[in-house]
Amino acid sequence: MSAIADLFVDLLGPDAVEAGDINEDYTHDEALTAAPVVPAAVVKPSSTDDVAAIARLANEHGIPLTARGAGTGLSGAAIARPDGVVVSFERMNRILEIDTENFVAVVQPGVQLDELDEALAPLGLVYQVFPGEYSASLGGNVNTNAGGMRAVKYGVTRHHVLGLEAVLATGEVIRTGGKIVKVSTGYDLTQLIVGSEGTLAITTEATLRLYPRAKHGATVLAPFATLEQVTTAVPQIVASGVGPLILEYIDMLTMAATCSFVGLDLGIPDDVRDAALAYLVVALESQHEDRLDADVAAVAEHLAELGAIDVYVLPSNAAAQLIDAREKAFWVAKANGADDVVDVVVPRASIPAFMEKVSAIATEHGAWIAGCGHAGDGNVHMGVFQSDPEVRGQVMKALFSAGMELGGAISGEHGLGTEKKQYFLELEDPTKIELMRRIKAAFDPNGILNPGNVFD
Amino acid sequence: MSAIADLFVDLLGPDAVEAGDINEDYTHDEALTAAPVVPAAVVKPSSTDDVAAIARLANEHGIPLTARGAGTGLSGAAIARPDGVVVSFERMNRILEIDTENFVAVVQPGVQLDELDEALAPLGLVYQVFPGEYSASLGGNVNTNAGGMRAVKYGVTRHHVLGLEAVLATGEVIRTGGKIVKVSTGYDLTQLIVGSEGTLAITTEATLRLYPRAKHGATVLAPFATLEQVTTAVPQIVASGVGPLILEYIDMLTMAATCSFVGLDLGIPDDVRDAALAYLVVALESQHEDRLDADVAAVAEHLAELGAIDVYVLPSNAAAQLIDAREKAFWVAKANGADDVVDVVVPRASIPAFMEKVSAIATEHGAWIAGCGHAGDGNVHMGVFQSDPEVRGQVMKALFSAGMELGGAISGEHGLGTEKKQYFLELEDPTKIELMRRIKAAFDPNGILNPGNVFD
Repeated sequence: MSAIADLFVDLLGPDAVEAGDINEDYTHDEALTAAPVVPAAVVKPSSTDDVAAIARLANEHGIPLTARGAGTGLSGAAIARPDGVVVSFERMNRILEIDTENFVAVVQPGVQLDELDEALAPLGLVYQVFPGEYSASLGGNVNTNAGGMRAVKYGVTRHHVLGLEAVLATGEVIRTGGKIVKVSTGYDLTQLIVGSEGTLAITTEATLRLYPRAKHGATVLAPFATLEQVTTAVPQIVASGVGPLILEYIDMLTMAATCSFVGLDLGIPDDVRDAALAYLVVALESQHEDRLDADVAAVAEHLAELGAIDVYVLPSNAAAQLIDAREKAFWVAKANGADDVVDVVVPRASIPAFMEKVSAIATEHGAWIAGCGHAGDGNVHMGVFQSDPEVRGQVMKALFSAGMELGGAISGEHGLGTEKKQYFLELEDPTKIELMRRIKAAFDPNGILNPGNVFD
Repeated sequence: MSAIADLFVDLLGPDAVEAGDINEDYTHDEALTAAPVVPAAVVKPSSTDDVAAIARLANEHGIPLTARGAGTGLSGAAIARPDGVVVSFERMNRILEIDTENFVAVVQPGVQLDELDEALAPLGLVYQVFPGEYSASLGGNVNTNAGGMRAVKYGVTRHHVLGLEAVLATGEVIRTGGKIVKVSTGYDLTQLIVGSEGTLAITTEATLRLYPRAKHGATVLAPFATLEQVTTAVPQIVASGVGPLILEYIDMLTMAATCSFVGLDLGIPDDVRDAALAYLVVALESQHEDRLDADVAAVAEHLAELGAIDVYVLPSNAAAQLIDAREKAFWVAKANGADDVVDVVVPRASIPAFMEKVSAIATEHGAWIAGCGHAGDGNVHMGVFQSDPEVRGQVMKALFSAGMELGGAISGEHGLGTEKKQYFLELEDPTKIELMRRIKAAFDPNGILNPGNVFD
């Protein structure tokens, strides 16, 4: 065992530290391009006090700390350094409270999304953030500001985190926010820590906003002759006031690959399928079945007016399978050999302009780029197929530049981590980067919290 | 004219600078306790370039800058120092864009809420933040993180600000966020600047989220025999899933004073009025009249089950008058001689416990405390009547402590400004205050941006 591991064994006991023969799981997340790294140790705190002690020790010795939830991230932010330590939250995995009067859940960072959902369903409550991977941890979600398909209606993680308990680099513990949706009392530390990818503080508890769970849901699938028709339809559906829960586009290739990956037959006639270059998926929900039926009928009629080849109201099992399959788009891309994935976000009305640029970038660089996206919120997910790392780097940079030129950003929900930071540092306004570096220093003067992420 | 005024005249020309005989409006906001201050000058930028030049000059000479919108704040944050300069945004008052595809408005800081609403109404769009004072400026709203009655459904200003243009203390201009609801690309500077009361940067443009405007609305008024019955009813109404737009409680005294202030007769029979110690106001909205009617009926029935003495569906003119009157609660309190106002926020289910403490604090200190509140989000607004400043200070501190002990915060939407910072600095966790000070220094090393606000 290394000297670093010894320090933590002395602190927490041997049972809470893995070193030497470290489980391979701790060496990576799901980023396609990141090389696995074996850390000096994996420490497994059982309490906030443990985390505070870990931070104090690391800060004193200048040991890098990388917080890790379920390791489902896509940008390398949970991969530690060889001289660093993974702080794994598998033992801090309790739902501490479900408060049915204030509609909040208080969770430890190791709680998985599916576990929280399972606990909330019988109470008629829901946590509205559903990113693709339900085995993800809430701690990881908070630190990545995870999004998902419902953002068009409910926003992303930051809109649902009301408060945090967090350990600073010094080992000091702070509590921010609370069971309240409005605070104008000093700077909003909650919102600053959300999405900071473990570089500002280590989250040890999150207070999450809950909603009444909708009793009824329906999913409408509309094939269109062109992707542009789909993306042009989206603002119209939003403007109608029907309040869709989900608005996804799926291109022809991704739809075919996805259905085949999960063995899903949507029963779409061959002639329609042959004519359809892209699909729009609209999910609706309501507390009232009759209102849902009326909304579905209105959306179906609207989609037909907007040029859909046909409109299918999916039976609930097929709908669930399709949404589930859509969630697996990353795995489909991976299984099909994608070399990288991007999740550029642009204003939703700029998706057609962005897709035109994507097409030109693909052609120019001999790459193949296909995908699907959260059409309602402009978050475009694409697999990039180009095995030459240098050329792929050019493709990535061109995609990010194109998104930023349209008023968007490099990542809508995956984060920068280690894998996209170089593009961020190259393309982002240097004044903002310097400001962020000063904020980083205000939190973590010795740079022990997830170094190499967001910044160099 | 002072030497400071001369510097700005040289920079912007005499037409853009007021000095010497300064209009009294620029010496105060609406905080009841703050003494007016005549600044060294008032500067009136016409562009972001002007603001950048003002900041560079001020930073070079160490001149304090206080950004000012419409001066409707309640905590003194728009009051400059005698050796400082008011940056008044009256000339930067244009709605730059209303984007009906992405559902955003881009505004300059001097635009007033009522002006924006007037521009949006014909387009069937709405900006969902309605704090009490519609003559407030968007710049002020952004920097105070203004709230208002709709927070129970739509959250507060920070949930609707998608992006900013802001001038740093150095005069550098940054753009944050954009026409997008999701970003995971570095730290969220937008959210950090929102609610920072002019101490981190000077906002020169805001990108605001819009929604389809509901076509139909209704307001239900329910008198209850006790305030506790009202506050206990609130979580039940939220849990029902009806999604109220507004959930307000008004105590008997405030209801009587408010109705008399605006000359409103709600037609409530004397016997009901005599028995009612508190009122609950529930506003609902919908795109569909039939659904609204059904929801109103369901809420009315629910309120009766929860112990309401009676339930009134108000005719739309009376409803508008009541909401309008409720918005004027501050003016009513002021007209009735309130010595200060507070807007403590607590978890909504803790309102009864908080009100019990309020009552004990009032008795103990010989003060009279009455009010109304955003019951749906736990934001309690009260007038404090106690003319002795020292005793009043004890009352205020006791109220804030009581709110914080229940997991709340000093201010839900008014901010700290100059008037509540001393309680913040005394009651808040010193670790967090030190962290906020370091963040402040990361933005504004020379401390020229609204010094004396939030911190000493």
